[in-house]
Amino acid sequence: MTQNIYDDPDFFAGYSQLPRSVHGLGAAAEWPELQRLLPPIAGLDVVDLGCGFGWFCRWAAERGATSVLGLDVSQNMLDRARADTEPSSLTVEYRRVDLDALPADTFDGRRFHLAYSSLTLHYLRHLDELLAAVRAALHPGGHLVCSVEHPVFTAPANAAWTTLDGRSVWPLDGYSVEGDRVTEWLAPGVVKQHRTISTYVTALLRHGFELTALREWSPTDAQVREHPEWEIERDRPPFLLLAAKAGSAVVSS
Amino acid sequence: MTQNIYDDPDFFAGYSQLPRSVHGLGAAAEWPELQRLLPPIAGLDVVDLGCGFGWFCRWAAERGATSVLGLDVSQNMLDRARADTEPSSLTVEYRRVDLDALPADTFDGRRFHLAYSSLTLHYLRHLDELLAAVRAALHPGGHLVCSVEHPVFTAPANAAWTTLDGRSVWPLDGYSVEGDRVTEWLAPGVVKQHRTISTYVTALLRHGFELTALREWSPTDAQVREHPEWEIERDRPPFLLLAAKAGSAVVSS
Repeated sequence: MTQNIYDDPDFFAGYSQLPRSVHGLGAAAEWPELQRLLPPIAGLDVVDLGCGFGWFCRWAAERGATSVLGLDVSQNMLDRARADTEPSSLTVEYRRVDLDALPADTFDGRRFHLAYSSLTLHYLRHLDELLAAVRAALHPGGHLVCSVEHPVFTAPANAAWTTLDGRSVWPLDGYSVEGDRVTEWLAPGVVKQHRTISTYVTALLRHGFELTALREWSPTDAQVREHPEWEIERDRPPFLLLAAKAGSAVVSS
Repeated sequence: MTQNIYDDPDFFAGYSQLPRSVHGLGAAAEWPELQRLLPPIAGLDVVDLGCGFGWFCRWAAERGATSVLGLDVSQNMLDRARADTEPSSLTVEYRRVDLDALPADTFDGRRFHLAYSSLTLHYLRHLDELLAAVRAALHPGGHLVCSVEHPVFTAPANAAWTTLDGRSVWPLDGYSVEGDRVTEWLAPGVVKQHRTISTYVTALLRHGFELTALREWSPTDAQVREHPEWEIERDRPPFLLLAAKAGSAVVSS
């Protein structure tokens, strides 16, 4: 199964202090741009792949989603997601599941209009299997909208800013060498899967998706005025946002 | 107009010595992967945007293209392209044109099944205008297949390998800051246009193309055995390859 670092006590304690954990979607730098890739939510059946504390699930329910299924591997995250969700809600359901080894009956024949995933897919070794399952569970024309850590962010052996001639630069290497990257982020030994943009896009096309948007997040001028410390993100995009539509084409692998 | 560095005598002398200039497509590292993105050529009307010495034009003619129109801004390149092309060829036609300021009558009402462009678009300031013209000149379902210098290659202020802790790294910065990049390559003062992957893909989608492939070239194991000096390209992709199909959707800007 996935490493499930979110159930590591030290990692979880640190993660719980992040602005996006405390304040929700509005505190996530990339959320405004990701939100623009979403279809109107009212009346949709939605699945959130890696729902964490459930911020997006509740946001979708508040905007009139018909049903929202939040999936996550972390018991810690789901416990808080449930605690933070109106107990009488019939719209939002949380379920513990390892997205890297999705049980065949995960969706129980349910179909969705929107599959959403925020900063989760780069933890998974078996992206192809997940995309196949999601594609099969989407209505024709259904949407997949997701964010991942940008491949230039995950690639380097030493993923930290360094200085060259007095300027900050991002020491890119290993871009085309996919696989495990072990980093220290909130806790030592966090394992991510580095993939190229090409691999993400090719996987989507192979599974019968039509790409409708590809965005490399960088801060707007307004964001930099509010958070001057974000300006450096213009030197190296931290997030890749993708939107795709389930086509009706025959899928070949 | 575009800088037209290819008509600079020093640049042209250096460019003419490159393996791909002397030996053609087979000497271009990315050609095998780019070739796989092409449709079968026989019977197609083809336009080559930035045809250079005409290697691709002649390759397409040899494979049974019905007509091939090669466009380039460089008189030097076109002179050699014409000299290297069978004078009695009725299939291949070369025309001098600035792709950054395409005359309205460039295509004279001609329509194409394939628009091809190798390592040219990153010199153009007015990519949107060119894509609009190409889209309008493609038959529905027609193909656009192109290569550009990869944005992580064009981005840095100082686009040269550097050393960190004894390893070669590519000092990425300025990724999200688009615009002119002035580099020394064969001659000083070569001006390129840096764009993000997001911008290339978004422009294609906006002009009514459906993305069918996105590849970030890196050498295969066989290529590294033959050219060990290419292995470092796995640390930072030098080329971005894109393929798209002209959809029948209504185009909005």
